[in-house]
Amino acid sequence: MPASYAYLGPEGTFTEVALRTLPEAATRELIPYVSVQSALDAVRVGEAEAAFVPIENSVEGGITTTLDELVAGEPLMIYREVLLSITFALLVRPGTKLADIKSVSAHPAAQPQVRNWLRAHLPDAVWESAASNADAARLVQEGHYDAAFAGEFAAARYGLEALETGIHDAENAQTRFVLVGRPARPAAPTGADKTSVVLWQRDDHPGALRDLLGEFASRGINLMLLQSRPTGAGIGNYCFCIDAEGHIADRRVAEALMGLRRICLQVRFLGSYPRADIAPGEARPTPPGTSDEEFMAASDWVARCQDGRF
Amino acid sequence: MPASYAYLGPEGTFTEVALRTLPEAATRELIPYVSVQSALDAVRVGEAEAAFVPIENSVEGGITTTLDELVAGEPLMIYREVLLSITFALLVRPGTKLADIKSVSAHPAAQPQVRNWLRAHLPDAVWESAASNADAARLVQEGHYDAAFAGEFAAARYGLEALETGIHDAENAQTRFVLVGRPARPAAPTGADKTSVVLWQRDDHPGALRDLLGEFASRGINLMLLQSRPTGAGIGNYCFCIDAEGHIADRRVAEALMGLRRICLQVRFLGSYPRADIAPGEARPTPPGTSDEEFMAASDWVARCQDGRF
Repeated sequence: MPASYAYLGPEGTFTEVALRTLPEAATRELIPYVSVQSALDAVRVGEAEAAFVPIENSVEGGITTTLDELVAGEPLMIYREVLLSITFALLVRPGTKLADIKSVSAHPAAQPQVRNWLRAHLPDAVWESAASNADAARLVQEGHYDAAFAGEFAAARYGLEALETGIHDAENAQTRFVLVGRPARPAAPTGADKTSVVLWQRDDHPGALRDLLGEFASRGINLMLLQSRPTGAGIGNYCFCIDAEGHIADRRVAEALMGLRRICLQVRFLGSYPRADIAPGEARPTPPGTSDEEFMAASDWVARCQDGRF
Repeated sequence: MPASYAYLGPEGTFTEVALRTLPEAATRELIPYVSVQSALDAVRVGEAEAAFVPIENSVEGGITTTLDELVAGEPLMIYREVLLSITFALLVRPGTKLADIKSVSAHPAAQPQVRNWLRAHLPDAVWESAASNADAARLVQEGHYDAAFAGEFAAARYGLEALETGIHDAENAQTRFVLVGRPARPAAPTGADKTSVVLWQRDDHPGALRDLLGEFASRGINLMLLQSRPTGAGIGNYCFCIDAEGHIADRRVAEALMGLRRICLQVRFLGSYPRADIAPGEARPTPPGTSDEEFMAASDWVARCQDGRF
């Protein structure tokens, strides 16, 4: 398999910074792609070993391009996740003052994260969307716009200076990224893992979604993401992207997935991988009655009863 | 109250076409606004009686700008909804041929709806995002780009011609729009209504969301939309925008909302209004045990028991 990772480019964006926090990235060639779709396609056709793309953002929610790519097409699997705190710098050509700024640019995803700051500090500046924050910085360098919102790390690359740093409308603004590869045996549980699946309901009766969630709840499994995505069959037709606590090697998770496989029209397993938000030692214990030992003891007991050995 | 409706402009977009399907629009002045936010603000400050904005799309899902505006800030209420089938025309300056097209433009929301068509017919055309589809048409008229994806109705306004019509990647591509005003007594039930609410969980234990949905399910209420939106408190913190069958004047809906009010941290009522997807006569009957009469009979029975009259 080629020792390269595809990632959502260009260079000098938050995605590259997040990718470089992974130890395994140091031993791979990192290749920027122009879109989430093309990065994931590189994995599907075997051009890259894995792809690194944003999947969730604490301001905008699930990143729908990425979710929709994972929901459809050739199956892929999430191997790892990375959480990165996002704060923007206002990058300008050296010497530019705040009062000189008539136009600002960034990727559209940045806009809701800097909207309040803009209203307070540059209420009259015109917003011009760019293909990426790094591209916005390049356009400022070339004189098309007066300022770009981007990571402070992008200033040096484009000969700009950071007029302001630490810009973010919401406290704790974070983006979650995932490393996605072809289906394989998931890495062993760490004790603080999560499992991602996509669920399609069999039919749409009152309580249909509640019943799906019951497969997790009755086994003490907490959900960390529930994002509905249109199936394309018209308004009101959705599938559900779900992140749940635990690893598919945990009995409670395996049994929940079996239950879902029985009652759903379709279930797509997207992987079990270590959580980026907490260390293994910090994971809360499984609720009473949901440990692997308790599942096995219960299974043994039923087998004994079936044998007349109770 | 001023007899005007604000809507997401500019003129000549699908939003205006959808708005003009409402009989009440004929007696109002219709004023385009540059953004969903500014249209809703016009209602909040009393500049407009109501605002008309897109809220859900069968390709992209919930329109997050609109949902986030309804979730936060001064409360607003949905009065009406409109469903519009969306197909695009490829608008060009008269005489342009498909082979001449090097650049195409449209609002970013159009992109996932024409992506497959583009790949098949114009694989090498450069995509340039515009502030709206109508704006893209104007930019084509002015010679900035070669073609725009917009409603066929926009061709005449901008002196363009439709090289192709009926372009849509997904069958049944529809957008749902809502007419939003200040809180007031909802219009009387029609027999085919829906109720919109936003729910914030009190805490995050296994089954927390299942419990919320149980308030609907146990009363036979089907859900038509469940869209999670970040609360801004960091990754994994979501509130839930829900559309449910029925009207707040229906006993089953009123009791579900009471239950949610008890168990949620916060509930925001966004209105009860007629469904646009079916006529009142086509609504499916409420499940056994969930009619107003059955709720009243059950309540009477408990009261009699409490009185010793059973």
